[in-house]
Amino acid sequence: MSLPPLFLKKNADRRLRAGHLWIYSNEVNVDKSPLRQFEAGQQVTVFGHDEKPLGSAYVNAASLICARLFTREPDVLLDRGLIAHRMNIALSVRQRLFTQPCYRLIYGESDGLPGLVVDRYDTICVVQLGTAGMERLKDDVIAALEKLLKPAAIVLRNDSSVRSMEDLTPYVEVVSGTLPPEPILVENSTRFRVPILDGQKTGWFYDHRLNRARLQSYVRGLRVLDLFSYVGGWGVQAAVAGASEVWCVDSSQHALDHIPLNAQLNGVADRVHTLQEDVFEALKNFKQNQDKFDVVILDPPAFIKRRKDQQAGEAAYRRINQLAMTLLKRDGLLVSASCSLHLPAETLLDLIRAMGRHVDRHVQLLEQGHQGPDHPIHPAIPETAYLKAFFCRVLPSL
Amino acid sequence: MSLPPLFLKKNADRRLRAGHLWIYSNEVNVDKSPLRQFEAGQQVTVFGHDEKPLGSAYVNAASLICARLFTREPDVLLDRGLIAHRMNIALSVRQRLFTQPCYRLIYGESDGLPGLVVDRYDTICVVQLGTAGMERLKDDVIAALEKLLKPAAIVLRNDSSVRSMEDLTPYVEVVSGTLPPEPILVENSTRFRVPILDGQKTGWFYDHRLNRARLQSYVRGLRVLDLFSYVGGWGVQAAVAGASEVWCVDSSQHALDHIPLNAQLNGVADRVHTLQEDVFEALKNFKQNQDKFDVVILDPPAFIKRRKDQQAGEAAYRRINQLAMTLLKRDGLLVSASCSLHLPAETLLDLIRAMGRHVDRHVQLLEQGHQGPDHPIHPAIPETAYLKAFFCRVLPSL
Repeated sequence: MSLPPLFLKKNADRRLRAGHLWIYSNEVNVDKSPLRQFEAGQQVTVFGHDEKPLGSAYVNAASLICARLFTREPDVLLDRGLIAHRMNIALSVRQRLFTQPCYRLIYGESDGLPGLVVDRYDTICVVQLGTAGMERLKDDVIAALEKLLKPAAIVLRNDSSVRSMEDLTPYVEVVSGTLPPEPILVENSTRFRVPILDGQKTGWFYDHRLNRARLQSYVRGLRVLDLFSYVGGWGVQAAVAGASEVWCVDSSQHALDHIPLNAQLNGVADRVHTLQEDVFEALKNFKQNQDKFDVVILDPPAFIKRRKDQQAGEAAYRRINQLAMTLLKRDGLLVSASCSLHLPAETLLDLIRAMGRHVDRHVQLLEQGHQGPDHPIHPAIPETAYLKAFFCRVLPSL
Repeated sequence: MSLPPLFLKKNADRRLRAGHLWIYSNEVNVDKSPLRQFEAGQQVTVFGHDEKPLGSAYVNAASLICARLFTREPDVLLDRGLIAHRMNIALSVRQRLFTQPCYRLIYGESDGLPGLVVDRYDTICVVQLGTAGMERLKDDVIAALEKLLKPAAIVLRNDSSVRSMEDLTPYVEVVSGTLPPEPILVENSTRFRVPILDGQKTGWFYDHRLNRARLQSYVRGLRVLDLFSYVGGWGVQAAVAGASEVWCVDSSQHALDHIPLNAQLNGVADRVHTLQEDVFEALKNFKQNQDKFDVVILDPPAFIKRRKDQQAGEAAYRRINQLAMTLLKRDGLLVSASCSLHLPAETLLDLIRAMGRHVDRHVQLLEQGHQGPDHPIHPAIPETAYLKAFFCRVLPSL
């Protein structure tokens, strides 16, 4: 079998040879292989300027990332068989690491399936198709999942904003089986009901699993504030780990409505409270009322979604970290996280340092957390590494 | 009380104001405050070029780092009382986090006690005085420890090479109580006998505690290779976590002699084996014999001790990571660590990426570990952050 060729310009093969999988539209030799000749999602063999094959990829002329490699072999089709094979490899490491069938099963490029995300909630699979190449393989993805896991239901949460960059329309659909009202997942021995169809992303953020596990050592008998709490991932786990009182703050009442239920599921309903308010406003009010906490968890949405948000985003991270520090008791813990790809870990740490100086505190960085092993990082693709969490002890200045 | 003044040159206060605690000898205004007027270890009040006080420090004219701040208040003596106070603050977070009295109790600058390291082995304290300022406070350090912990013995392991930079002579001494033959420590529920008087550093490396804890999820039923094993910290814990066979390789027979004992202490003597050999040689031999492993732990000594070792050191990390990868079975785990301050985490990851490409493997970075919370990082002092451990799944190329 032979796939149509996609030729690259001179030196455009360097990133690929170093291990990356993406090709940008300005790297294609459009004289030899015009991009508009390809259907959205069509598969090709990629050739360097030297006409040596670099692997097989799928193409989308409408996207800045106009092609993504899925193998280093030429003339290989990404089909149902290869998808199932890659899913099997991804599944095996999750099964070894997690006692419960609750995890991100497929994490795109890192698992050799560019553009595909699958989160598993026990018997439910929630799929995100992020590219035209994957959208075209929808039936094969569904069939491969059915064969691999025989799930009770498969949901497509194809309403992520990244799809607009691929000229794909958003939709949410239950494509197989019947979705129970709200499935229960288990993370670090704590149980949660999550909104699969209308929650954030696929309904849950498995990426913070290990960071929430580490939190358990720090909260026994203490008063905890969980900011941007969503459905209570951090807060309820803190209560289960023995926190005496937990406040979950979020601007979404729909998200907060899940928290009493999730607390109840784990027998800690008496210690978990919710507050529906803009988080910046809530912080100002706590400060005004001298209402202090032993532990503050700051896990905001990405303040820097695009490069143009950099300056305003960093200012927001500075402001909110400073506010959070001032709400801590004398020897408190700030857990400061960021999921902004565009905020490097060292920048976040440096702004925590600066804010610590600004409010005259001595900060000790006790632990550094990252995304869990069901979100493997591809060492050649910096875009696959986005999550950081700093566990900072905040003391009076030396 | 008033301390003699140390005046800085213009702009030399910037690093201090940002939170750092060190003053380099070329930053001192020696016309106004000649360094040679101070005794080694003498305490001073530091003033900026604007004559505003920046805090109190101790001085050593013989060292490139000629002064270290211990408080931001002027005219404060670092004495027995302040040492005891700082030790108390350091102890409280260790006691909260660890169920066993086995940890680094004091980690220098990060704990507000520049130049002082104390490792606690249950009833034994092992002290490292790294600067003239701390050497001068030896009796106060010992007295503060005695008051705080009433240890059965206090040992000074003042034989670290950093002392030569402070013009201090090396010595090892039991200064209080009686040292039992070899004390037992507990880390992640595993027990170890360690050589306090003539082992590496203070006898043990507590910094990898959390990384060794994470390893436990990855080794059940598997064949594990522990390189630069020392007394078996990783290897014995792997066996306790269910590894079917563990090989510990080290060039020191004295270190290896502890491993059968440590394995026996934990009931895994039948599964832990030792090999006394240069690690590079051992790797070549394993490769020649096609002797493969499911998990390889690569935790070498610092290959880059000084800036001038940078190039040769990075080459050594490349070579040994490449060799380790080729010893893995088809779906193996490489745990690649480095304690070189001069090897940034991103450089280590990038060389793992490059070596993965070189031997045609697909690498997934599953987890990133750091030094544990008893080695807190001072966010303004990059020198306090040195340890990284990458958990890499190594698969055939995509």
